[in-house]
Amino acid sequence: MKLLIHIAYLGTNYCGYQVQSNAPSIQKMLNCATEELFGYPCDLVGCSRTDSGVHAHEFCATVAKHGSNDLPTDLHPDRIVQALCAHLPEDIRVFAAEWVPSEFHARYDVLEKEYLYRIYNHPVMDPFELNRAWHFPQKIDAEGIFKMQKAASFLLGAHDFSAFMAQGSRVESTVRTIRKSTVEMENHLILYRVAADGFLYNMVRIIVGTLVDVGRGKLQPEDLPAILESKERTRAGQTAPACGLYLDRVSYPNKNIPGYEHS
Amino acid sequence: MKLLIHIAYLGTNYCGYQVQSNAPSIQKMLNCATEELFGYPCDLVGCSRTDSGVHAHEFCATVAKHGSNDLPTDLHPDRIVQALCAHLPEDIRVFAAEWVPSEFHARYDVLEKEYLYRIYNHPVMDPFELNRAWHFPQKIDAEGIFKMQKAASFLLGAHDFSAFMAQGSRVESTVRTIRKSTVEMENHLILYRVAADGFLYNMVRIIVGTLVDVGRGKLQPEDLPAILESKERTRAGQTAPACGLYLDRVSYPNKNIPGYEHS
Repeated sequence: MKLLIHIAYLGTNYCGYQVQSNAPSIQKMLNCATEELFGYPCDLVGCSRTDSGVHAHEFCATVAKHGSNDLPTDLHPDRIVQALCAHLPEDIRVFAAEWVPSEFHARYDVLEKEYLYRIYNHPVMDPFELNRAWHFPQKIDAEGIFKMQKAASFLLGAHDFSAFMAQGSRVESTVRTIRKSTVEMENHLILYRVAADGFLYNMVRIIVGTLVDVGRGKLQPEDLPAILESKERTRAGQTAPACGLYLDRVSYPNKNIPGYEHS
Repeated sequence: MKLLIHIAYLGTNYCGYQVQSNAPSIQKMLNCATEELFGYPCDLVGCSRTDSGVHAHEFCATVAKHGSNDLPTDLHPDRIVQALCAHLPEDIRVFAAEWVPSEFHARYDVLEKEYLYRIYNHPVMDPFELNRAWHFPQKIDAEGIFKMQKAASFLLGAHDFSAFMAQGSRVESTVRTIRKSTVEMENHLILYRVAADGFLYNMVRIIVGTLVDVGRGKLQPEDLPAILESKERTRAGQTAPACGLYLDRVSYPNKNIPGYEHS
């Protein structure tokens, strides 16, 4: 059995999830914390690779003893949650843990991921949203929000999202299936939620940049199908900043396979 | 005429509103920004003195040329808002400004202030609430919340709040009138809102410490009247941490006096 941990983190102070040689990463912090707790180096496999400055309300990773697919420990998952938190910086928290079979893969077994993107739309930035939302000062009115909602709905379903992928990325297939794509306004915050079976590199941030172009009238909702079809990155909007992006939820299909025990 | 500015700030990096010799304060930042913008030193008068680590969703202060009760400038309030923001750290924002008569006093003329106190009630702290809520890990259940609501309602009206004032404080009268005192639960957050004509030193934080004692069963709601009557600080609960406290709203009575112009 390996351990599946559910973590939340404020990404501001990290270079992203993945270990990099010259900057603190979420994975590096988890490596240190797990080694301190279990007394041996562990292999961490994350559900995705969030970029520098991107946040997570839920990020999942498996923990196994280095070189094995097993975590030999008698500790109860709840105890592990508390103990790992004690070894982690305060901006990274493990909030749940559970045993999963050794074959479980935190990335390949993902059924669906949901992201949230937060835009603060007011001439003056809210200091409490600093590094937690994209400050977009130019007013997007109710009509603009409505158009963004319409544009967002064109993305639903299976499409080739090449136009919404960072240039130079390499991937086997550029087809993804979006199952949720909604825009809502809460006071001065514009919230975009998107759920899919997977995402291309920078896909959510490019979608958001494009939706904002719709909101301010640079594009029309009806332009979205043509942008998708073009498969040209240059047809879509700018890449919205990392600070507004949150990995919000990760789902796995195999909740009922034998040996799967929820903490 | 003087200028009344409405500001919001994240108090984490400051020693409070008031200028202190060895630490950055909100007032000091405003002093620097106004002098840079207007080209002469200004007198700032704030609506209250928030403590180190306390936040503000709305804090009001007047700005006048040093030694006068006037701000000689042709700048439109909206321009001043933008310009002051450009001279301030990002965790302090001026979000509105308006002209008020020279006699206006930011502290003495306050009609009502409202505070919000945020408690994060879960074994594992939400990293996004770090320094923004009091982490209280011991579970307060629905019954506990109900008792806190009941206890909070005993504080409504005019009372001598000596029992809820930091020991050693000196003040002419310890009677204050509370017009709102509510507790609500939103997911894992317990929110306490209190509005009054004024507050004694640490009053909100001592009320919150006492309400939490009610929530966890150390006190009963019916103990509140006796604590008030005792006027003894030791009968009330602990002083809740500064990081959960927000000055939320400041009201002045004289919105209709001549020369009062809203930006």
